[in-house]
Amino acid sequence: MELLEERIRRDGVVKSEGVLKVDSFLNHQLDIDLFDAMGEEFKRLFADAPVTKILTIEASGIGIACVVARHFGVPVVFAKKAQSINLDGEMYSTRIQSFTHGRVYDVIVAKKFLGPDDHVLIIDDFLANGCALNGLIELVNEAGATVEGIGIAVEKGFQPGGADLRERGYRLESLAIVESMDPDTGEIAFRQGSVTKREVPAGRAASGDLGDGAAGRACDGAAAPAAPTAPAAPPAAVASSTPASPGFAASACDPREESEAHS
Amino acid sequence: MELLEERIRRDGVVKSEGVLKVDSFLNHQLDIDLFDAMGEEFKRLFADAPVTKILTIEASGIGIACVVARHFGVPVVFAKKAQSINLDGEMYSTRIQSFTHGRVYDVIVAKKFLGPDDHVLIIDDFLANGCALNGLIELVNEAGATVEGIGIAVEKGFQPGGADLRERGYRLESLAIVESMDPDTGEIAFRQGSVTKREVPAGRAASGDLGDGAAGRACDGAAAPAAPTAPAAPPAAVASSTPASPGFAASACDPREESEAHS
Repeated sequence: MELLEERIRRDGVVKSEGVLKVDSFLNHQLDIDLFDAMGEEFKRLFADAPVTKILTIEASGIGIACVVARHFGVPVVFAKKAQSINLDGEMYSTRIQSFTHGRVYDVIVAKKFLGPDDHVLIIDDFLANGCALNGLIELVNEAGATVEGIGIAVEKGFQPGGADLRERGYRLESLAIVESMDPDTGEIAFRQGSVTKREVPAGRAASGDLGDGAAGRACDGAAAPAAPTAPAAPPAAVASSTPASPGFAASACDPREESEAHS
Repeated sequence: MELLEERIRRDGVVKSEGVLKVDSFLNHQLDIDLFDAMGEEFKRLFADAPVTKILTIEASGIGIACVVARHFGVPVVFAKKAQSINLDGEMYSTRIQSFTHGRVYDVIVAKKFLGPDDHVLIIDDFLANGCALNGLIELVNEAGATVEGIGIAVEKGFQPGGADLRERGYRLESLAIVESMDPDTGEIAFRQGSVTKREVPAGRAASGDLGDGAAGRACDGAAAPAAPTAPAAPPAAVASSTPASPGFAASACDPREESEAHS
């Protein structure tokens, strides 16, 4: 989406640690006109999907999800980071480890808001390693609902989350895919062409630039939720670089460095 | 706002501990059509205010703020609960103690997103003791910006936050003010008539039904930010029932029991 790419080029800041800051329009200050245009684009991209609900995760996904939801005429449900709250049987839940915050949190959705009849469009601001998304997918699966698709504002194409989700058969539309970023020049290169129709060679993620530090961490691919169409082989490149974490249902990392790093 | 009151009557659940659950349309599942109608109403109520920015706080304020912002044509900034993140000089910050979560957190806004030229409309889903709002007001004051008004979806009129803010001269518009709730019958009574023009006798908060448990806690009124018009006397009824907490800049409680209690 050209409007978003232009905006990222103009106002995005490439931080030295491989983090892209887009807090002036996407996840701290929010440009509602831009969100509205993104909503229109998502509606175009998912025009044939019988979406009944939009699911996102607090906090930075909520704003986009709500503005996008107007274009679909459906409610938004946001998954909550439950922290120390006691969970009861009324919640679907999964666990996500946040490297940024150095802690594990439960992510929950009340059962009454997601059921077998729901066709869910998952919306989030960022996709890097895909761990938060895997958590959301698992919540949808727990509910017996259908993942119709995943709509992302900014995907970091040099991290494995997007390739992994596409390999597993999910319909993933990212409005801007950052192919590479140069912290010295501030230059940002975007992936060109149609994304969903692009062939993704197996193991591609491993050959890409994984960046350094937090950028290189991947989800626990072995424990990721099953694909919606045919069960694909676990993405070897991702799984082999990440030890299995049986304590976590779906995710062992947190891709939201951009939205929650305040330094 | 009749539409919202009807919805609260229909779908709100009065919990035994004096908590009103509205999670099916306001702060877990979000009814975007309702939010849109609320945005229209806020625009009508604040038509003459030269609003340049809408400020809210994560997480449950974000959705409403974004949908409301479309009607004002301005960006949203949401204050973040910073947790363990290192704060630097680039942030306005204040501290809020959350009784629900049993911890204190820093609330921050990047300085670059709020400045002396800004005329801010504060939007949030709930107003009870007003502590989160006092934190937001303080952030606006730190920035040298102007609080044009405060727009709330649901005010619990039997808790002191609303009366306190009105006494201090803030232009506060709550679309539904719950005057009383009966957990046994589930009955909810709303305050009738114009809210901003209503005379609020000094000390009213103390004579009202403060509820029990969490519902009875009040902000640290003595440390609350100064009024926008004339400096009013500190609301004695509130201050006298609350020990001063010099460690907290503006707030010593958290009014978001409804949005973050999952039991």
